[in-house]
Amino acid sequence: MTYLDYAATSPLLPEVSKAMHLAEQKFFANASALHTPGHLAMNEIEHARELLAEIIGSNKDEIIFTSGASESNNTVIRSFEGHEIETSPLEHHSIIEAAKVYGGHDKPKLYSYMLANNEVGDILPIKKIAKKAHSESGFIHSDLTQSLGKIRLNVRELDLDYATFSAHKIGGPVGVGALYVRKGAPFKPLIIGGNQEKKRRGGTYNTVGIVGFGAALKKMKELESWKIYDTKVRKLRDGLAEWILKKIPGSSLNTELKPNKSLPNILNVSFQAAEGESIQLYLDAEGVIVSTGSACAAGDIKPSHVLMAKSGGDAEVAHSSIRFSFGLDSTEADIEKVMGVLPGIINRLQKMSTVKMKE
Amino acid sequence: MTYLDYAATSPLLPEVSKAMHLAEQKFFANASALHTPGHLAMNEIEHARELLAEIIGSNKDEIIFTSGASESNNTVIRSFEGHEIETSPLEHHSIIEAAKVYGGHDKPKLYSYMLANNEVGDILPIKKIAKKAHSESGFIHSDLTQSLGKIRLNVRELDLDYATFSAHKIGGPVGVGALYVRKGAPFKPLIIGGNQEKKRRGGTYNTVGIVGFGAALKKMKELESWKIYDTKVRKLRDGLAEWILKKIPGSSLNTELKPNKSLPNILNVSFQAAEGESIQLYLDAEGVIVSTGSACAAGDIKPSHVLMAKSGGDAEVAHSSIRFSFGLDSTEADIEKVMGVLPGIINRLQKMSTVKMKE
Repeated sequence: MTYLDYAATSPLLPEVSKAMHLAEQKFFANASALHTPGHLAMNEIEHARELLAEIIGSNKDEIIFTSGASESNNTVIRSFEGHEIETSPLEHHSIIEAAKVYGGHDKPKLYSYMLANNEVGDILPIKKIAKKAHSESGFIHSDLTQSLGKIRLNVRELDLDYATFSAHKIGGPVGVGALYVRKGAPFKPLIIGGNQEKKRRGGTYNTVGIVGFGAALKKMKELESWKIYDTKVRKLRDGLAEWILKKIPGSSLNTELKPNKSLPNILNVSFQAAEGESIQLYLDAEGVIVSTGSACAAGDIKPSHVLMAKSGGDAEVAHSSIRFSFGLDSTEADIEKVMGVLPGIINRLQKMSTVKMKE
Repeated sequence: MTYLDYAATSPLLPEVSKAMHLAEQKFFANASALHTPGHLAMNEIEHARELLAEIIGSNKDEIIFTSGASESNNTVIRSFEGHEIETSPLEHHSIIEAAKVYGGHDKPKLYSYMLANNEVGDILPIKKIAKKAHSESGFIHSDLTQSLGKIRLNVRELDLDYATFSAHKIGGPVGVGALYVRKGAPFKPLIIGGNQEKKRRGGTYNTVGIVGFGAALKKMKELESWKIYDTKVRKLRDGLAEWILKKIPGSSLNTELKPNKSLPNILNVSFQAAEGESIQLYLDAEGVIVSTGSACAAGDIKPSHVLMAKSGGDAEVAHSSIRFSFGLDSTEADIEKVMGVLPGIINRLQKMSTVKMKE
């Protein structure tokens, strides 16, 4: 299998799997309990918290563990219920849909802008938006789910009040995320319950999951993964992009390849007169796994809101796109596999299509 | 280690661990994705959903997977924001505290009553409360977290509109729960996001966790675990209770041992002139792991709200209590270990105490 859907989810790293299996045995107790096995579990959680804080440049008390990025995003948006909420058109559904439900007209205003987009990889000018937010005595949240590990991050440098993280996009387990909340920033818990996370997030601690997140963070830090993404992964991505543009008629990129314009691991491409879902299925039959837009919206017949926004509402561009997303383990062989099967697939679809190719 | 804190969390069953490790390899893809690895992951999720539905007597479409019982509870309570919400005084904090935040005066009214309590094991008359709720055109939710696997359950027989479940109390993983929502019952998603769970719960599917929940349910069903709890576990629990009452001065039970009055796996005991947390620590030093009340509230200096409610506000009873909770693997040897160390601990604490023993 040629797996090029890392932005949807990344397979568990072997180090993570090992750490979690050990934790199942050693740290299975309820981490809130006052007995020794409980303390042992809590120690592991605090190690992971310190590591994440160190990596993103926050204090450890500013980190809350959650069940994932969607929960983190919802928690921030709901903390501003009734307030004005401005989001970028490229945000994840867990921001856009939550903002529709909770947004109002009161001040202070919340800006929620992701640092980098999941479908096309676009990097947004967060520091500028943070400056604007703070100049108005507002607040800024950034969904860093896709950015963690791919580029260097520092929540203080970015001047963020809130930031969202997910474990499974960096080779950790699904079902574990985190939320950075700057000390003193407004906050309302979404999951109300016991004393966990200083009453900011109820529910039994997912110790094993948090240990897995910690192991993924440790590996990321040791490798300085952002350097590998910036070199090896970027080269693979750019190589495929240039090859597609040159070899496949009617192809166009939805990802700007320039450094600082996009994450190095995402490549979104449209093919005139070829339908994205069909391309995905034909590639799947050849053992090449890619996405059309975001898996979270799969099943929707509506075109991706991100591509609609980027293309100025061109549904054809949106419907004819696929996303390749790469991981640290991606290789030249993966790219060669794509090069071997993609031209034939696109050619067949374009021939069958009733849409006329533009010259 | 003599682990008698199963009600706080149960160690992962070997079958669950095995199923999850296999799933990490085979079903790691994003289950919402339309490619083959995505479909394979989704199939596993649907198997687990069918199994839970079969066990609790619901339709599979009435099951929503969540990150755990606290999220399930919060989701129901928040669906009744602004409405009258009545809870029992024995509810978990994720019900009581959420009801304080969201409760109002509008109709229809929500009743939230657990079937069985986590601290003392009390079984509440849910069918009667359901009848009352429905006679007023209201709705009823029951937190079945502690009941699942311990006693037979059927949401239709109990006439419930909502019910909460957790995987880690039956030997599944932490971070996975479920919510039963009767078809047509009012519902608002707590975690808004993509199309997952028919737009009722956003966030990437925790396939590995859900597979683990499924494996725990499968084991539970194969064993007909409620029969083992009703016989072997009940015998252990009752044996210890009777022994404590006979052998330890100043002891009294906070759990009613009669069948149908309490879960067979929970025993809450108070000891005059001995502080619960001290008893817990001394037992811990002897390798015996028990809780004082609920781990979710650990760190609170307030006495357990459950014991305060049950004892009519007697803080001494509440402060002097510990909970033994048993699992399928509990043995006579565990009980003998407790019998060997508990009298000395209680005696020492009672001697040191400034509280005078009642005759």
